[in-house]
Amino acid sequence: MNKRGFASDNNAGVSPEVLQKLTEVNTGHVVGYGDDIYTAEAVNKIKEHFGREAIPYFVFTGTAANVLSIAASGKPFNSVFTADTSHINVDECGAPERFSGCKVISISTKDGKLRPELLKEHMIGFGFEHHSQPGLISISQSTELGTVYTADQIKDLAEFVHQYGMFLHIDGARLSNAAVSTGKSFKELTSDCGVDILSFGGTKNGLLAAESVIFFRKELAHEFKYIRKQGMQLASKMRFIAAQFLAFFENNLWERNASHANEMAQKLYFAVKDVPGVRITQTVESNGVFACIPKDIISDLQSEFFFYVWNEQNGEVRWMTSFDTTEEDIELFRDRLKQLLDKRK
Amino acid sequence: MNKRGFASDNNAGVSPEVLQKLTEVNTGHVVGYGDDIYTAEAVNKIKEHFGREAIPYFVFTGTAANVLSIAASGKPFNSVFTADTSHINVDECGAPERFSGCKVISISTKDGKLRPELLKEHMIGFGFEHHSQPGLISISQSTELGTVYTADQIKDLAEFVHQYGMFLHIDGARLSNAAVSTGKSFKELTSDCGVDILSFGGTKNGLLAAESVIFFRKELAHEFKYIRKQGMQLASKMRFIAAQFLAFFENNLWERNASHANEMAQKLYFAVKDVPGVRITQTVESNGVFACIPKDIISDLQSEFFFYVWNEQNGEVRWMTSFDTTEEDIELFRDRLKQLLDKRK
Amino acid sequence: MNKRGFASDNNAGVSPEVLQKLTEVNTGHVVGYGDDIYTAEAVNKIKEHFGREAIPYFVFTGTAANVLSIAASGKPFNSVFTADTSHINVDECGAPERFSGCKVISISTKDGKLRPELLKEHMIGFGFEHHSQPGLISISQSTELGTVYTADQIKDLAEFVHQYGMFLHIDGARLSNAAVSTGKSFKELTSDCGVDILSFGGTKNGLLAAESVIFFRKELAHEFKYIRKQGMQLASKMRFIAAQFLAFFENNLWERNASHANEMAQKLYFAVKDVPGVRITQTVESNGVFACIPKDIISDLQSEFFFYVWNEQNGEVRWMTSFDTTEEDIELFRDRLKQLLDKRK
Amino acid sequence: MNKRGFASDNNAGVSPEVLQKLTEVNTGHVVGYGDDIYTAEAVNKIKEHFGREAIPYFVFTGTAANVLSIAASGKPFNSVFTADTSHINVDECGAPERFSGCKVISISTKDGKLRPELLKEHMIGFGFEHHSQPGLISISQSTELGTVYTADQIKDLAEFVHQYGMFLHIDGARLSNAAVSTGKSFKELTSDCGVDILSFGGTKNGLLAAESVIFFRKELAHEFKYIRKQGMQLASKMRFIAAQFLAFFENNLWERNASHANEMAQKLYFAVKDVPGVRITQTVESNGVFACIPKDIISDLQSEFFFYVWNEQNGEVRWMTSFDTTEEDIELFRDRLKQLLDKRK
Repeated sequence: MNKRGFASDNNAGVSPEVLQKLTEVNTGHVVGYGDDIYTAEAVNKIKEHFGREAIPYFVFTGTAANVLSIAASGKPFNSVFTADTSHINVDECGAPERFSGCKVISISTKDGKLRPELLKEHMIGFGFEHHSQPGLISISQSTELGTVYTADQIKDLAEFVHQYGMFLHIDGARLSNAAVSTGKSFKELTSDCGVDILSFGGTKNGLLAAESVIFFRKELAHEFKYIRKQGMQLASKMRFIAAQFLAFFENNLWERNASHANEMAQKLYFAVKDVPGVRITQTVESNGVFACIPKDIISDLQSEFFFYVWNEQNGEVRWMTSFDTTEEDIELFRDRLKQLLDKRK
Repeated sequence: MNKRGFASDNNAGVSPEVLQKLTEVNTGHVVGYGDDIYTAEAVNKIKEHFGREAIPYFVFTGTAANVLSIAASGKPFNSVFTADTSHINVDECGAPERFSGCKVISISTKDGKLRPELLKEHMIGFGFEHHSQPGLISISQSTELGTVYTADQIKDLAEFVHQYGMFLHIDGARLSNAAVSTGKSFKELTSDCGVDILSFGGTKNGLLAAESVIFFRKELAHEFKYIRKQGMQLASKMRFIAAQFLAFFENNLWERNASHANEMAQKLYFAVKDVPGVRITQTVESNGVFACIPKDIISDLQSEFFFYVWNEQNGEVRWMTSFDTTEEDIELFRDRLKQLLDKRK
Repeated sequence: MNKRGFASDNNAGVSPEVLQKLTEVNTGHVVGYGDDIYTAEAVNKIKEHFGREAIPYFVFTGTAANVLSIAASGKPFNSVFTADTSHINVDECGAPERFSGCKVISISTKDGKLRPELLKEHMIGFGFEHHSQPGLISISQSTELGTVYTADQIKDLAEFVHQYGMFLHIDGARLSNAAVSTGKSFKELTSDCGVDILSFGGTKNGLLAAESVIFFRKELAHEFKYIRKQGMQLASKMRFIAAQFLAFFENNLWERNASHANEMAQKLYFAVKDVPGVRITQTVESNGVFACIPKDIISDLQSEFFFYVWNEQNGEVRWMTSFDTTEEDIELFRDRLKQLLDKRK
Repeated sequence: MNKRGFASDNNAGVSPEVLQKLTEVNTGHVVGYGDDIYTAEAVNKIKEHFGREAIPYFVFTGTAANVLSIAASGKPFNSVFTADTSHINVDECGAPERFSGCKVISISTKDGKLRPELLKEHMIGFGFEHHSQPGLISISQSTELGTVYTADQIKDLAEFVHQYGMFLHIDGARLSNAAVSTGKSFKELTSDCGVDILSFGGTKNGLLAAESVIFFRKELAHEFKYIRKQGMQLASKMRFIAAQFLAFFENNLWERNASHANEMAQKLYFAVKDVPGVRITQTVESNGVFACIPKDIISDLQSEFFFYVWNEQNGEVRWMTSFDTTEEDIELFRDRLKQLLDKRK
């Protein structure tokens, strides 16, 4: 018996369509390492959704997509600027530094979103050999706080960044949720905005283990196959990674999954926002709800529903919904939450 | 229509039992990153087969298993000795050097197997700060030339290595084939011999993408979780990697697959060894057949059956069999080979 | 004709005693790389000043001393906490990250000094594989803002750090200035406080190019000779680095130089502190004076006296004194400063 | 009293002219890190000797010059080919791999010299992502075996290398000795031959600690200042490194020193070559003499004259001469050698 909850969108399993597709491609021999028809087809699908100039490479994990994006777009003497809440900054055990050699510089934000005005003061030291040379800005879409950049905000960042000869990277582990949230296509949120490199995620949205690095600049991509191999991310049976992306795009599985997760977050938000003792701390724009609740009820609540404490100090918690969250999950959760809050009065 | 051939054991697909198991574990929520019952069960299975002291960690690729083994057992100032034909030396695009910082020193062999007498002259420079400090010996079992170490040969190597305070690593991407070939259990070929670290592979023997690093020394394992994370090899939906190993051990799928592949290699060997124009170059002990054939027929033969040229200069080629190779594959191949050889007379 | 100024203590030349000592040791042959009597003598001198358990290694640059200290005391998955003004954070072009793989985490301070209360909130994530593991705290003594830690403050930090199993490192590029400022011996400011590793600098205090890494824990030092070699810091003609330290300790050159520099900073401070338009921004405790002056006079003043702008935004500048600063330098500088300030009224 | 010998050209001290020059430049303040007139002058001197397109950067050690050359001319997925006797391969404790991430591939030679015919078989795997991509050929001039490349041999190598889009690097720790030996200028032995990058050494030829990386291709140099800083090789008091090169070129000190060392090697060669029991193993073309002598006299001989055993197995030893070797040194050495050989009859 598995306990359900709101811990993370990767605590869910895999959409059945994905396993079905794995079975479909499991016939006969194909050349390993990506020189096969399924990979070619998946690449094409990505070009359809992101623009013909998109150059995708498949990898296994989101950490890998981020780290290899950094390694591909910078030299070890470059710095990468990112929100202090970003996965790159706090959830990759220093993998970016170890593999790329780059310096990661974190910037404090209120809502997980970088903006030109926050970056401006850091745009210094160009040409000064004592300083890491500003090279990359990395933003998360949707952010680790559940907020979402508008297309215009991304455009502004791209313009800002390019005037310094730097690149803009998106950690799009949850890009599907942002696309659904903004009503924009993938292309409108990335290449149309001037984004240079993208970590495009599938695993958090119903795939098994399939992520990709998508380049929108040819010159950054041309040596990437060596970097992926050195990064230990070249799948020998690549067709089974590609197949996941085929399932992702077929009948818009990505959209159905993300829409559902986002809707469930809205439902959860409305279910708890007015409960006395609950204070919502971030705008709910994708599939996460952040709230402060009394610290003394947290562990009781966790014992029945998985979720993570975001901030030990102020009792802020994170509730993530996923493609398989049900309305019943939300009702049961809200009821238990209310019960615990009532008890402490 | 897929072309079949003898290119590599990773050109085959996946055993149906593996996809079946993925479906079985795809129910409800479980904690990500390995803290789930399926992973616990897979760990237990590995302990059953390799000994209770075995400490396994799952990763995605064989390159990763090798590179992270090196990083876990050495410091950047250590050197790793390996056969010049080894995957570590020639097929990982320098990933070992990049991630671990270690120096890889290759040793020429006739049959892909290292022996104490080949290593002896390299056991120098201990304590001399100008030299990389000998740290690890890495052997492949079965080797990249299709040969297999006996348990005694591995014991000898372990003893040799330990007298210098060094560690013995096995790249066991094809350990199943070696186990079947020698009639030994996994334990008898590894921990019983004094092996310190093992890359244990599944992908080349019917899994989708599942490899592992198995430690036989606790002190090497204790910080490995951070190294795996930094190595971008921590699966968020770990249960689906674990599930592959569950299928691997259930009803001895690993053994059935490897036995079949080895038998097919024997059949292929007997089918071609006496064909005029064919010269077998390595003893056929696992699932690979190495042979010299006239260079001028190679591309015609390749156009119908995938395989790789091993040595451009002398026309040596490599034919790998896999769990799904059929007798018909072999017959068709032998017939075509004969036909091409006849034609050139 | 050389322009004098207050740019940095490394814009000064070398104390004549140092060049004299280089000549003295320049006789005959000695074994290279440190196995010579001069190096042995310099090691002894350091043990006299820092305690018998001190284990020093000589290197060429302060960046190297810092980076190699980090590499010796941590694994690539560790993090290093440091003040955001520290040399490690802003003046080493990301060398710590590139060579050690560690994550550098900067902490904002008012006076360049870390304190347990600033560190406390960062002491999280131990054992959590997604987070870099807190490993090292690095402080600068004297700080990059000219302030100085008391021995008690260092003791507090060491105790704090050790309760987490972490290490305390001092970047002592200007430790001599701090020793003079506090009236403490080197030993009282380092090993007596529980410091684990020290970058001990000479170059900023009259030497030519001589720095050292001093370990106060044997277990951190035992593989350091390989790390120094890999860090490209092993001098072949080591006697000439050792000789500089011999001169440093002979007749307390280090103390005379540092005392002079500190006194000149005091003189400079008193000369300018009450000049209208000048606002001193940091307590003057070693050989640096920080002040805000009107931005529009900066470049005129710089054209006659070298110095650096510390903060472009608020017009804060840094004036460093050195062993060869003269009272005349200060008078001329003050006069010119006043003149420029008068002119703008 | 110092024991003299033939251990290494870095067991000698420093030419007095060098210390004299250090004193000369030790006046007043100059900007640190290389923006001073002495550095500018030294750069100019190097351009005079190596050609106007030469772009030199000063560093502290020969290991650094080599490692930073590799890092500047390749990506971590490149390989570096070098003779198995080269310093890069055996005497840098794996620093090239650690800092650059590149794979070092050693090639066996008889005389320490690479030739196109030895390299040819390694020119494979271009574009194949599993293989490190051939990037750099590094040769030593003069070699670690005391042999010297002719200008034509270097030209041949450069042409060979460039046809593959690779670069040619010279480890010129003893380039002065090669120049004197061949009667060619530095320019004729480097840029005129098509060399791309050079480690140009001073320390082994009478300097204190001064080496340089010289680029003959602008595009390789343009980011080098960051690489040098990250490599911990940026001297704060750069004028004192530059001053050493000023002394080096003044009155052709470099040539006088190298000529003397080479002549002494010839004298030593003629003094011992016909002594029964001595077998010279390499042509004496620069400042080293290699010979096999009976193993049982080695330690007695070493106890009076420093020198290193080159090959423990066959009793091959290395005798290096230097700028300060005297005829008396040679006579005493020969006499003692003869005496020991006589005694064992």
